[in-house]
Amino acid sequence: MSQRFAQLAQALAAVAGGLHGRGWVLGTSGNLSAVVEQDPLRLAITPSGADKGALRAEQILLIDERAGVISEPGARPSDESLLHLRIVAERGAGAVLHTHSTWSTLLSDLFGAGAGLPIEGYEMLKGLAGVKTHEHREWLPILENSQDMPALADKVGEVLKQHKDAHGFLLRRHGLYTWGNDLAQAQRHVEILEFLLETIGRTLLMKKQAN
Amino acid sequence: MSQRFAQLAQALAAVAGGLHGRGWVLGTSGNLSAVVEQDPLRLAITPSGADKGALRAEQILLIDERAGVISEPGARPSDESLLHLRIVAERGAGAVLHTHSTWSTLLSDLFGAGAGLPIEGYEMLKGLAGVKTHEHREWLPILENSQDMPALADKVGEVLKQHKDAHGFLLRRHGLYTWGNDLAQAQRHVEILEFLLETIGRTLLMKKQAN
Amino acid sequence: MSQRFAQLAQALAAVAGGLHGRGWVLGTSGNLSAVVEQDPLRLAITPSGADKGALRAEQILLIDERAGVISEPGARPSDESLLHLRIVAERGAGAVLHTHSTWSTLLSDLFGAGAGLPIEGYEMLKGLAGVKTHEHREWLPILENSQDMPALADKVGEVLKQHKDAHGFLLRRHGLYTWGNDLAQAQRHVEILEFLLETIGRTLLMKKQAN
Amino acid sequence: MSQRFAQLAQALAAVAGGLHGRGWVLGTSGNLSAVVEQDPLRLAITPSGADKGALRAEQILLIDERAGVISEPGARPSDESLLHLRIVAERGAGAVLHTHSTWSTLLSDLFGAGAGLPIEGYEMLKGLAGVKTHEHREWLPILENSQDMPALADKVGEVLKQHKDAHGFLLRRHGLYTWGNDLAQAQRHVEILEFLLETIGRTLLMKKQAN
Repeated sequence: MSQRFAQLAQALAAVAGGLHGRGWVLGTSGNLSAVVEQDPLRLAITPSGADKGALRAEQILLIDERAGVISEPGARPSDESLLHLRIVAERGAGAVLHTHSTWSTLLSDLFGAGAGLPIEGYEMLKGLAGVKTHEHREWLPILENSQDMPALADKVGEVLKQHKDAHGFLLRRHGLYTWGNDLAQAQRHVEILEFLLETIGRTLLMKKQAN
Repeated sequence: MSQRFAQLAQALAAVAGGLHGRGWVLGTSGNLSAVVEQDPLRLAITPSGADKGALRAEQILLIDERAGVISEPGARPSDESLLHLRIVAERGAGAVLHTHSTWSTLLSDLFGAGAGLPIEGYEMLKGLAGVKTHEHREWLPILENSQDMPALADKVGEVLKQHKDAHGFLLRRHGLYTWGNDLAQAQRHVEILEFLLETIGRTLLMKKQAN
Repeated sequence: MSQRFAQLAQALAAVAGGLHGRGWVLGTSGNLSAVVEQDPLRLAITPSGADKGALRAEQILLIDERAGVISEPGARPSDESLLHLRIVAERGAGAVLHTHSTWSTLLSDLFGAGAGLPIEGYEMLKGLAGVKTHEHREWLPILENSQDMPALADKVGEVLKQHKDAHGFLLRRHGLYTWGNDLAQAQRHVEILEFLLETIGRTLLMKKQAN
Repeated sequence: MSQRFAQLAQALAAVAGGLHGRGWVLGTSGNLSAVVEQDPLRLAITPSGADKGALRAEQILLIDERAGVISEPGARPSDESLLHLRIVAERGAGAVLHTHSTWSTLLSDLFGAGAGLPIEGYEMLKGLAGVKTHEHREWLPILENSQDMPALADKVGEVLKQHKDAHGFLLRRHGLYTWGNDLAQAQRHVEILEFLLETIGRTLLMKKQAN
């Protein structure tokens, strides 16, 4: 397991650097995790408050299913560890990525009242796991933001049960959560959902002009 | 031929990396091909479902004129191989590139009802093969998107016959196809058409404001 | 001290390159500083008129608390050295960064009449030192621009006394100032505030559409 | 002279790569030159039709004051060589840079009827050679585009005589020309003017919303 943890820590740091380059995890925003072992659950996750543009593999922590740190007692994992753990439990995900982009932030606010955002009819949707056609309708649930992590984790759990086909969700004025079987698939889902959110935002701007 | 295939595979992977850097082939979107041999036709093409940000030359496949894989039996070439082959057949192209940018996606939708988008009066047009003046009028046809590839390939064939001077076309809510005598020319056409689409999109936004 | 100056000069040049890559210190715009010693005050600072995209550590100057150059007599430090020194004095900052982005420039103008810009309810705010919840309200003061540096430094001093919790301020049609305990924290504050300004600007554009 | 030509060719290729990275000389657009010798005039300039993203120093040509190629008989210099030569003659410039950005292209069209675009009150203006305060008013003349290069060069000459303080001009639906005493100053002028054009474009969009 130790070697697998080391490999995933390297991979998570590399993914963080790429996401930072695109401006999707500026400052200390965003957090990333990957499952090291399923039973008992061991998750490699970014630490609390780390600059994502300068993240090194040595900073990645190993936590258990209650967000207790195993690798480095006393260190503090991401504040949102409980959300990552809930997603892993509900979806059987191998990796969870959370980004803050300008488009996901502003659309989570604009569509927040309806508690979700529909994405429909785009070829890009085919990049989401299991989607075979652009005629797919993806519903991206939006949850109100909160600092009460156990309560928010419970809401995430409910939403995931309610929307069994969702590939991600938004926290209002906060950002995007998505996941995948492995880190590569989770990264692909980030790219696809961020692309679609930007496209929807810009289209909305163009269409409103036209009226 | 084997050496030429290896060189083109390297070149295709490098071009994919550059397009991914600009956000034009995020996730598994987009596909790229280059002609290895004309008779019998042999095409180097990206595999189905590959992440364009991590594409390696070894993943590029060699296919024949019916999209059968020669290099690695059992592997699956891009879902859109038939479109690439049709473009090569109709235009004698040496390379075909397909990108998904936010601007091409949203304009393909906005202008889709008219089944095309005019681009006229821009100096940048002179970068398209055979265009000598900014007074050129380029008509970029738009086709409805479909997952029925043989049918879509036939429509592409018709559109290319109908618009003999077109340097590219859009698939609605999907993206841009363009091509060139060789990979360098095809890449240039991507840059030029994507630039013009972004410029037209932003101009439209500014002008509508003014009314 | 000499070794610490050399290290900070290297770090400042690296940060300048990163900010230039994002388009936040184009041309000769922006300036950067870090405290080498607190008593007597010694500040490492970018020289006047340097291209930030090509800044080398050797160009960084060492100045005293009156902006007199120690490291290289006759050289000229940033025109805005007095602002940096005032921020260090008022806030006990270890580093001060000043950027010119398109969004900070245009919002400083749009909100300039109200002499400030509120930022409220965004998770990203938690990246600012001491902020524990997205329910925080950050007030970003806006000062009229001026070439009279001693007078402007006095105004900066007043504004910092008046808004004791502010993590930055804008100069109208000019750009953003922020700071931190050290260079890493100051850089994080730049990323967070620039992100929030872009998000607020784009949201404003979307909401006005909706009316 | 040969060594100076070689150095400038290297520098021009490096600047082209940087401008291409920002999307300001996509495809074959844009051209770059630097004075190798003033008397007789010898100019290092990009060749006609070269992809700016893949430009190598060996491709740079040496031309005389009539755009005749000295370094490589039979090669074809930039179509716009006469414009570069006219700017060098009128302004005594050491380097001339021409870019095509989306913002310069669209603003050259929007403001084209008034034959110029005012830029006023921005701190960023201080990066232009000789400008000491943000209270400066820069007038950026706009010329109608043309493929008749001798005629267009004459118009450029007139406009430069008429607007002796201008640091650049726009060709309508085409792009920006600017220059400097040397290549570093010309590059700085590109960054500053492109920044200001983007800022003005985005501000216009925001302000029109407000009405």
